[in-house]
Amino acid sequence: MSYSIGVDLGGTNLRIAAVDENGTLLEKVTLGTQVQRGREFVISEMTSAIQSVTEKYSARGELVGIGIGVPGFIDMDTGTVRESPNLPGWADYPVHQDIERRLGTKVILENDANAAAMGEKWLGAGRDVNDLCMFTLGTGVGGGIIHNGRVWHGMKGFAGEMGHSTVQPEGHACGCGSHGCLEQYASATAIVRMAKEAVAKGMSDAMANASRLDVEFSSKVVYQLAIQGDKAAQEVFDTVGRSIGITLGTFVNALNFPMYVIGGGVVSAWDAFSPAMFDELRVRSFIYRITAPEAVKAGDKRTIVTRALLGSDAGLFGAARLPMLLAEDRASRATY
Amino acid sequence: MSYSIGVDLGGTNLRIAAVDENGTLLEKVTLGTQVQRGREFVISEMTSAIQSVTEKYSARGELVGIGIGVPGFIDMDTGTVRESPNLPGWADYPVHQDIERRLGTKVILENDANAAAMGEKWLGAGRDVNDLCMFTLGTGVGGGIIHNGRVWHGMKGFAGEMGHSTVQPEGHACGCGSHGCLEQYASATAIVRMAKEAVAKGMSDAMANASRLDVEFSSKVVYQLAIQGDKAAQEVFDTVGRSIGITLGTFVNALNFPMYVIGGGVVSAWDAFSPAMFDELRVRSFIYRITAPEAVKAGDKRTIVTRALLGSDAGLFGAARLPMLLAEDRASRATY
Repeated sequence: MSYSIGVDLGGTNLRIAAVDENGTLLEKVTLGTQVQRGREFVISEMTSAIQSVTEKYSARGELVGIGIGVPGFIDMDTGTVRESPNLPGWADYPVHQDIERRLGTKVILENDANAAAMGEKWLGAGRDVNDLCMFTLGTGVGGGIIHNGRVWHGMKGFAGEMGHSTVQPEGHACGCGSHGCLEQYASATAIVRMAKEAVAKGMSDAMANASRLDVEFSSKVVYQLAIQGDKAAQEVFDTVGRSIGITLGTFVNALNFPMYVIGGGVVSAWDAFSPAMFDELRVRSFIYRITAPEAVKAGDKRTIVTRALLGSDAGLFGAARLPMLLAEDRASRATY
Repeated sequence: MSYSIGVDLGGTNLRIAAVDENGTLLEKVTLGTQVQRGREFVISEMTSAIQSVTEKYSARGELVGIGIGVPGFIDMDTGTVRESPNLPGWADYPVHQDIERRLGTKVILENDANAAAMGEKWLGAGRDVNDLCMFTLGTGVGGGIIHNGRVWHGMKGFAGEMGHSTVQPEGHACGCGSHGCLEQYASATAIVRMAKEAVAKGMSDAMANASRLDVEFSSKVVYQLAIQGDKAAQEVFDTVGRSIGITLGTFVNALNFPMYVIGGGVVSAWDAFSPAMFDELRVRSFIYRITAPEAVKAGDKRTIVTRALLGSDAGLFGAARLPMLLAEDRASRATY
């Protein structure tokens, strides 16, 4: 057996998994990320957790490497986090060299949404394709592009930021410095904001009550109200769906990929937002209309838009996959 | 010497060029495209013009093949034009097999904007990069993506349709069936429409006069008025620039390519629209802001947004390049 370690370093949780070469989960550890205690503390916690896992499996197989999914821009040239709002103090620090030195093992740093896209390609919705474009709808909206079975990095490693595609040119201000980004209409944060905007306009008594009673008024609560028939809550998810559909249209037209995957926590509201998403996509993309599953004959190439299958583990599996692919690529180059 | 034939089959002109392996133009022939006389007539004209060129050069070198740039969706699986508003009667006809049979030479059919992107990669703005994303601002807005030095086809050959990226979700109706596409704000057609809208609102006496006097009131006239200081004409080009900037932002964020090229006839108005384009791009793309030429140190990787260099010949050169690349790829596969 060979195995590798996948790490998902979120703003809230630090999760570590040992995964074998077939994608079987050997073990998963979840720790709170005490980001406020600083980078050094988090890295120490991470490395000692990784060490205790690897000690357990060292007798049973070869450790291929460690992949770490991080929220933020990863500069692949230098292996540093270029910018990460959720990890203050990490910018421009050579994280992967530091961890490699401490653990004596190959470490790959990757954007968390890119890792999630790789997870879905390996074991999830994208198992049968080599090109896919994934949107991760969570606190923000992340994105990852897989091309020829590998993460599409672009020039520096910054590619895949479809969450900052403009949906409404004059729209809501975004943390990225722009306004009207997809993230402002399709993230869990945006769902809560749009619900509160509807409450402020007096559009829904049910949402007003829920937001008053529930200190953690969340996108899940808005979803519950939507499926119970609350019109204002349904309109929020209509906006979510239309916004994703507009962005999907742009990328279906530009990339002509076989698959687009929608993941992240918000995807549990699929039945509430996906009808508007598909309606909008059909309007926005001639290419989708002629390649949609309902438009082509059996056996013809088609454009699939589908929900992710691995839930919150996608990034963990994807991160674990990265060192395996690196090893494969090195071996295949060595044979020429 | 080896050479190939590039063909640019436009709605108005049919142009044929013989180009050698170094990109030297040997000969260029321009014929009117008598589209209304039907597909058979156009193909006959094209093949006899190609034959008279190849007869001239057959003694001097080897003909590698023929590349034909066509406005429309090319299905690379079948080698047919799937949809082309400018070439009625060509849809689903196996053009390339027909021409191959008549000429006895390898023929490659390609979308005209993809061919233009290849031309700029080979001999123009993109000579030094292997990845670029090109927007061709003409009667419509075409697009072409070059990745690893080759045309990015996507699953079927439909990729690169950035002209149908949504810029204004509730915007002007587009021929593609959507509304608010980039094409509706950045094409020569859109410039004339927006100028006429300004005239109808009484916003410019100079434009009103020009549109009354000039039966061929064109985007060039609007440009002349803009550089002469007409505010309404300048606003038209502001809209052009902002619309391109919004779309560029989306693709810089998603692709993280080293280069984005703006070509087509409208690019001669570069000084009128590019300031607004860059302003908008800086707002829309965090990645552009940290990788723009002014943001990085000398020698660091940077995102270049620049105008095309080959003018209306880009597509002709690019089409001629296609059979050469196919021959190279076959030769390199044969050595393994």
